[in-house]
Amino acid sequence: MRRRFSVRDLGRFAAGALGAAGAPTEVAETVAESLVFADMRGISSHGLVRLPIYTERLLRSMVSADAEPELKQCSAAAWLMDGRNNFGAYTGVRAMTAAIEAARKTGIALVGVSRSNHFGTAAYFARLALKENQIAIVTSNASQTMPPTGGRRPFVGTNPLCIACPVAEGAPFMLDMATSVVARGKVIFAAQNGQPIPEGWAVDAQGLPTRDALAALDGAVLPLGGPKGFGLAMALDLLSGALTGAGAGPTVRNMYEDWSEPQNVGHLFITIDIGQLQPIEDFKARMAEYLTALKASPRAPGCDELLYAGELEARRQEESAQSGVALPGGLLDELDTLAGRLGIDPFLPVDRPLQNSG
Amino acid sequence: MRRRFSVRDLGRFAAGALGAAGAPTEVAETVAESLVFADMRGISSHGLVRLPIYTERLLRSMVSADAEPELKQCSAAAWLMDGRNNFGAYTGVRAMTAAIEAARKTGIALVGVSRSNHFGTAAYFARLALKENQIAIVTSNASQTMPPTGGRRPFVGTNPLCIACPVAEGAPFMLDMATSVVARGKVIFAAQNGQPIPEGWAVDAQGLPTRDALAALDGAVLPLGGPKGFGLAMALDLLSGALTGAGAGPTVRNMYEDWSEPQNVGHLFITIDIGQLQPIEDFKARMAEYLTALKASPRAPGCDELLYAGELEARRQEESAQSGVALPGGLLDELDTLAGRLGIDPFLPVDRPLQNSG
Ligand SMILES: NC(=O)c1ccc[n+]([C@@H]2O[C@H](COP(=O)([O-])OP(=O)(O)OC[C@H]3O[C@@H](n4cnc5c(N)ncnc54)[C@H](O)[C@@H]3O)[C@@H](O)[C@H]2O)c1
Ligand SMILES: NC(=O)c1ccc[n+]([C@@H]2O[C@H](COP(=O)([O-])OP(=O)(O)OC[C@H]3O[C@@H](n4cnc5c(N)ncnc54)[C@H](O)[C@@H]3O)[C@@H](O)[C@H]2O)c1
Repeated sequence: MRRRFSVRDLGRFAAGALGAAGAPTEVAETVAESLVFADMRGISSHGLVRLPIYTERLLRSMVSADAEPELKQCSAAAWLMDGRNNFGAYTGVRAMTAAIEAARKTGIALVGVSRSNHFGTAAYFARLALKENQIAIVTSNASQTMPPTGGRRPFVGTNPLCIACPVAEGAPFMLDMATSVVARGKVIFAAQNGQPIPEGWAVDAQGLPTRDALAALDGAVLPLGGPKGFGLAMALDLLSGALTGAGAGPTVRNMYEDWSEPQNVGHLFITIDIGQLQPIEDFKARMAEYLTALKASPRAPGCDELLYAGELEARRQEESAQSGVALPGGLLDELDTLAGRLGIDPFLPVDRPLQNSG
Repeated sequence: MRRRFSVRDLGRFAAGALGAAGAPTEVAETVAESLVFADMRGISSHGLVRLPIYTERLLRSMVSADAEPELKQCSAAAWLMDGRNNFGAYTGVRAMTAAIEAARKTGIALVGVSRSNHFGTAAYFARLALKENQIAIVTSNASQTMPPTGGRRPFVGTNPLCIACPVAEGAPFMLDMATSVVARGKVIFAAQNGQPIPEGWAVDAQGLPTRDALAALDGAVLPLGGPKGFGLAMALDLLSGALTGAGAGPTVRNMYEDWSEPQNVGHLFITIDIGQLQPIEDFKARMAEYLTALKASPRAPGCDELLYAGELEARRQEESAQSGVALPGGLLDELDTLAGRLGIDPFLPVDRPLQNSG
């Protein structure tokens, strides 16, 4: 059963929890907004489900929520940011804001971030560039979860890539994806339901292909498209890590398992100020023509509508803004436990009715 | 049976053919070099196999080999190039050279190309940036060959993406891939051999999944990783096309089928001058550590060596430089037919022995 909650209530609860764990207001609100944004868009893998671990890392001094990231200009269009171990959502917004500002002057700009943490859903940052009529390319690395092609142990993370282009109306084009075939969450779900998983999703602890969900959980999820996805995850690792001075591969620490050191996640933000290459109206007219042609393209039997990346998420976001956000039942209990631990108001008073307010 | 030919002989033949069809020497040599480079690296899908169609388009005035591309600066770090319908390999080298020069001043730079043609293997351009200690991101669009998720007819091309990073020694990291699961050539091969194709490679003419290679040839190859690969191909289409003013999706003309108009392919070249962000030796030390860790990672049973993107191609390239390039037998006949048509020396004099010279 999934119950719906207002965006405002969710944001307040999440910011309250982070604040109670020691985050300054602006940091707490930014991180909270990023998590609620993900849940609104149906990206529950990067929504409030991450609040307990974020809070836990803060409580155990693995994240420095009061350290202000430091931005350094390297050349006209390239900047580096030392995240100073603050939350990824916070360093990310700071970095993206700087990249947007910089691209206004030089047409294209880059801000690389080191010493950061898990940054949640990449679309949260890309959206800022869209508002300014810029194209965004956003990536991050993550701790090791996917093996190399032919490998037995994880070497790269499911490093996300987001590429977003503004439109005149309707949903912006917003590809935002992990470089794995599917999220590990889907394997967990199959295991819980005693179902086999499709070929190609995962390998077992020996690195051999498996359709057994339990064996897959002992092993690892696979990159999309075999060596291509592995190569892409590695390229994103190098851009986010090797180029910025953050960790990469083995030197990005696991958020859930490593309590000895900060994560040292790296991110890269590239922005392109479209208006400097062509009138922004021309670009948007091209986008409209392109997306209209796509939507009108012939469909295979059983397909009701052709979608482009970001369309479904934008619809869900709108719906969530109007009718509230659905959260899985199990998560509510976890959030209540968290509230108890932090000594803040429980998430939902026991007998409070379902909320549908905006 | 595959026979080996010297790099020099192949280059001379290809440049000779393009010259006989009307290309100025510099254009002919650049295009020839790009094709031979692909064959040397074992990327035979983008090697001399393309010489007949390139020549044919030139002869039929679909390519303007004597038009010099025009470069226009849009802002400090962003440039556009009107390819003036010259060959993609030629406009691409011009654009990449400009991007490298620009990134030296601004740290990151972008050159977008419109009114171009099929540009062959993306690695051919990326390699130029590596020599200058820059990271390269190279993409292009291509005519429609892959359907949208749920679609029945092709909407995007197998738009390639190349991301390359320099190293101190050994093979550079060089991801260079089509956004399809596999090249269409592999489906053709299966059809010729009466073999079924694996699930997930292709759809039939109705847009339904098929394992029948013949039905797949009537249908279309699929993007890697389903909606993710489709989204990636679309993002690359927008970056190469919508942003540069070239065609995109339906407005990129098919090189093999459309003889009414130039292709209007678009490319995008992004370069990052690493030395402006950190000492280049530090970057290369990080790369070495990362790649060494990868190579030492545990292997699954049956795997002899873990590879990174570009490694195999670099080995083949070295081997080809030393022992000559292998070409499939069928291609030799095609090249001899081409020679006959152009009135140039046939590719291999009938009784000439196998070549192993360097
Ligand atoms: N911070 C991190 O370490 C990290 C790591 C991995 C992923 N992530 C985030 O996880 C989130 C989810 O990633 P995911 O790969 O599970 O997403 P997903 O598989 O749900 O979607 C991937 C992309 O495909 C598009 N898409 C889905 N179905 C489609 C269809 N039928 N037609 C057309 N397009 C379609 C979506 O719009 C989206 O852009 C992302 O926001 C990503 O940034 C973060
Ligand atoms: N001009 C165009 O329109 C166009 C369109 C599509 C593709 N292309 C070109 O086609 C060429 C071939 O593309 P492709 O997708 O068939 O290439 P591919 O599948 O042979 O290789 C893709 C990438 O995976 C890497 N790789 C392969 N096996 C690996 C392994 N076992 N371990 C680690 N890495 C491995 C390769 O090094 C390469 O970087 C590329 O040069 C591309 O630029 C051009």
